[in-house]
Amino acid sequence: MSAGCPLCTGDGGLVVVRTSRFRVVRVVDGDEARRFPAFYRLIWAAHVAEFSDLPDTDRHASMDAVTEIERTLRALLAPTKVNLASLGNVVPHLHWHVIARFDWDSHFPAPVWAAPQRDEVAGGAAARLAQPLTAVDAAIAAALAR
Amino acid sequence: MSAGCPLCTGDGGLVVVRTSRFRVVRVVDGDEARRFPAFYRLIWAAHVAEFSDLPDTDRHASMDAVTEIERTLRALLAPTKVNLASLGNVVPHLHWHVIARFDWDSHFPAPVWAAPQRDEVAGGAAARLAQPLTAVDAAIAAALAR
Repeated sequence: MSAGCPLCTGDGGLVVVRTSRFRVVRVVDGDEARRFPAFYRLIWAAHVAEFSDLPDTDRHASMDAVTEIERTLRALLAPTKVNLASLGNVVPHLHWHVIARFDWDSHFPAPVWAAPQRDEVAGGAAARLAQPLTAVDAAIAAALAR
Repeated sequence: MSAGCPLCTGDGGLVVVRTSRFRVVRVVDGDEARRFPAFYRLIWAAHVAEFSDLPDTDRHASMDAVTEIERTLRALLAPTKVNLASLGNVVPHLHWHVIARFDWDSHFPAPVWAAPQRDEVAGGAAARLAQPLTAVDAAIAAALAR
């Protein structure tokens, strides 16, 4: 735990599943959630900054979980692409962004952090997804419980 | 191999090391190389789009190699943060960006794909690194040969 770290003191999103080593949250606030509704984060429980700070078994476990999230997004939403990233420049507490991208989203094919390429979907992009986000959340939780 | 894919038909950077399953290149062209000189990519040899397309052993091997690159960057350059990302929206051939970030670089703490935060280092950022890039290249090649 690090007292000043927002991922130590808060959840960092809507908690979808929590294990002893990590939690998975869905981003539910702000521009990101509206533009990229199937935006999940795997947040490591311990306060470590870099991926290479983890022992091998934890590294593999974290990426196995990221892979399960990716597989679930592909199976339920058929995204154009899945984006994975561990940046942490602002909050140096290990977390993986797992984002379903669509050729119609406001930024595609640019990264979500770049400038928009077109107007965003009126009323929020979630309505264009093939499944409700609650179903995606439940499927991710089920996949990670296996 | 995919005929229209630039990562099937070209190297995608300066090749630092090549194995039967992947190559590691350093980005040497354009704005990215000048602004973020310690910018490496691990490019999977086979044309697969998504991380979850790989069998588990290959997934683990790819991230073990990404981790070795990250460790080498940390050991030689002491970056403020290392950024890892697999996006592939423009070129859907699996590749990992491994980027040493510094609190003085033109975009920090924003992602490299976002808007600049300050002027870039005059004459190129490579001169501010603790080691020449050729030494970093050699250390990455050595780490991945072990």
